[in-house]
Amino acid sequence: MVHDALGQPGADPFTERTPRVVAARRLTRRADREKAGRFLAEGTNAVERALVRASGEPGFVHELFVTERAVTQYPDLIARARELRVPVSPVTDRAAAALAETVTPQGVVAVCALVDRPLETVLAGAAGLVAVLDGVSDPGNAGTVIRVADAAGASAVVLAGTSVDPHNGKCVRASAGSLFHLPLARSRDTASVLEACREAGFQILAAHGYADTDLTEADLSVPTAWVFGNEAHGLGHEVLAAADLGVRIPIYGRAESLNLATAAAVCLYGSAMAARHAPPGADQARVTDSGRGPVA
Amino acid sequence: MVHDALGQPGADPFTERTPRVVAARRLTRRADREKAGRFLAEGTNAVERALVRASGEPGFVHELFVTERAVTQYPDLIARARELRVPVSPVTDRAAAALAETVTPQGVVAVCALVDRPLETVLAGAAGLVAVLDGVSDPGNAGTVIRVADAAGASAVVLAGTSVDPHNGKCVRASAGSLFHLPLARSRDTASVLEACREAGFQILAAHGYADTDLTEADLSVPTAWVFGNEAHGLGHEVLAAADLGVRIPIYGRAESLNLATAAAVCLYGSAMAARHAPPGADQARVTDSGRGPVA
Repeated sequence: MVHDALGQPGADPFTERTPRVVAARRLTRRADREKAGRFLAEGTNAVERALVRASGEPGFVHELFVTERAVTQYPDLIARARELRVPVSPVTDRAAAALAETVTPQGVVAVCALVDRPLETVLAGAAGLVAVLDGVSDPGNAGTVIRVADAAGASAVVLAGTSVDPHNGKCVRASAGSLFHLPLARSRDTASVLEACREAGFQILAAHGYADTDLTEADLSVPTAWVFGNEAHGLGHEVLAAADLGVRIPIYGRAESLNLATAAAVCLYGSAMAARHAPPGADQARVTDSGRGPVA
Repeated sequence: MVHDALGQPGADPFTERTPRVVAARRLTRRADREKAGRFLAEGTNAVERALVRASGEPGFVHELFVTERAVTQYPDLIARARELRVPVSPVTDRAAAALAETVTPQGVVAVCALVDRPLETVLAGAAGLVAVLDGVSDPGNAGTVIRVADAAGASAVVLAGTSVDPHNGKCVRASAGSLFHLPLARSRDTASVLEACREAGFQILAAHGYADTDLTEADLSVPTAWVFGNEAHGLGHEVLAAADLGVRIPIYGRAESLNLATAAAVCLYGSAMAARHAPPGADQARVTDSGRGPVA
């Protein structure tokens, strides 16, 4: 069945010891991803989004590893890969499991080019809403914020400072495909990132639990770069000083705080909705006439 | 040091084989929690919140297990427990690790009474905002939603249908103490829960990705019970039919959906803010004059 579908009659599936699988498995480590300029996307949802990106960005997907069962289960996905001239390689279940990092792998793993682009490129096309993550350390959190940013219509995400590698398998999974949708940049230098955002016309709002200004008091209808900090330590003094405004989410009950992803959801959706539903009389020209308007 | 602080000179710390520790360890299993009517709260944050609850609800904390190191590190916590006449029992590091379910336990574990109360009791005191979870299966998600509901000023949380046990260790941790703040009920019968919410004066909004009504179109300024469904399957037909309105969060970008916790954050904060910042001319009497007003 595999051989038939792949047009390689007689070819044995790769095992976990086949050099190409061994090389791909190394991409579960950050240093090896940086060296190779590649990362792994596992599961039908991620692979499907990766192939969509590859259709506009030839060569984005280098190779697709599939088990015999996956070939039978996901014929459309395999056909799509072949249309795009992505090499499809049969692998054993054990080889797929070695590449997958999940408990119940679907038997489909794509080797992709890294998604991040230079900060200037990413901000040049950005409009309306940008999310900046500074020193976010948990890959699941980073992926969830990328997903929320995508849902809220953000036009770019920047992973700044010591933030986790967005190509980490847990981040890829948590992003639920959004990693492949949004222009994404990485930069160790958070100060430069904020400066570049300001030059690109964004106000810079720093989400901070102890800020003086409440979310309901901030003007969220103008182009905004939101900055979110580390899960445990929040944002550093330099970042807070460089922002135009520190903004806290009001806590109406007895919780001490929100976690990163839910806080980002409230802030990013607050901006997305304010930009689209500014109260009558508000100066909407800033939002809609500058070329930075909502794209929904 | 332990002996001194505990006032039990000469007492040896309990090991992981001491019957009381063995009994407590069983509370990591749902069936044993139900049988004993007790659960475990681990870590200084959770224990602190549990002791605050115990100060208004005598007997809520049955026992506190602490390592020698924790006695030195958290003297205020131990003193607080002793003030409340909570038995404080010294345990070995291994015993604490066996009870903790975390990688780096803090050596402080409380045995608490279950927090849920009858639905009628919980709804009798509820006002403004209620969160209902129907068939939510991941304990981390349930805990995060309980934390968001608390932050948004909800006055009750109901775990309905086949939802996970909120006393699960992962849920307790993810709630970051909020499990001890909010009145919480459990009920297998979701239809009855919704009926009871309606009788208590709440409109029932069902969060649903494919609903006709957009969050920005719904009236969020009136007392509302939000219903959230299973992570993978959402809400069932019966629940959608029983709700007053299905509401979707607008997706402005290319993401397919939001995850449960971020969706709940957007919905619950949408209601919390609308109830407090209703536009001029809106009939605020419904929110503030009925005794169901915001408590912030």
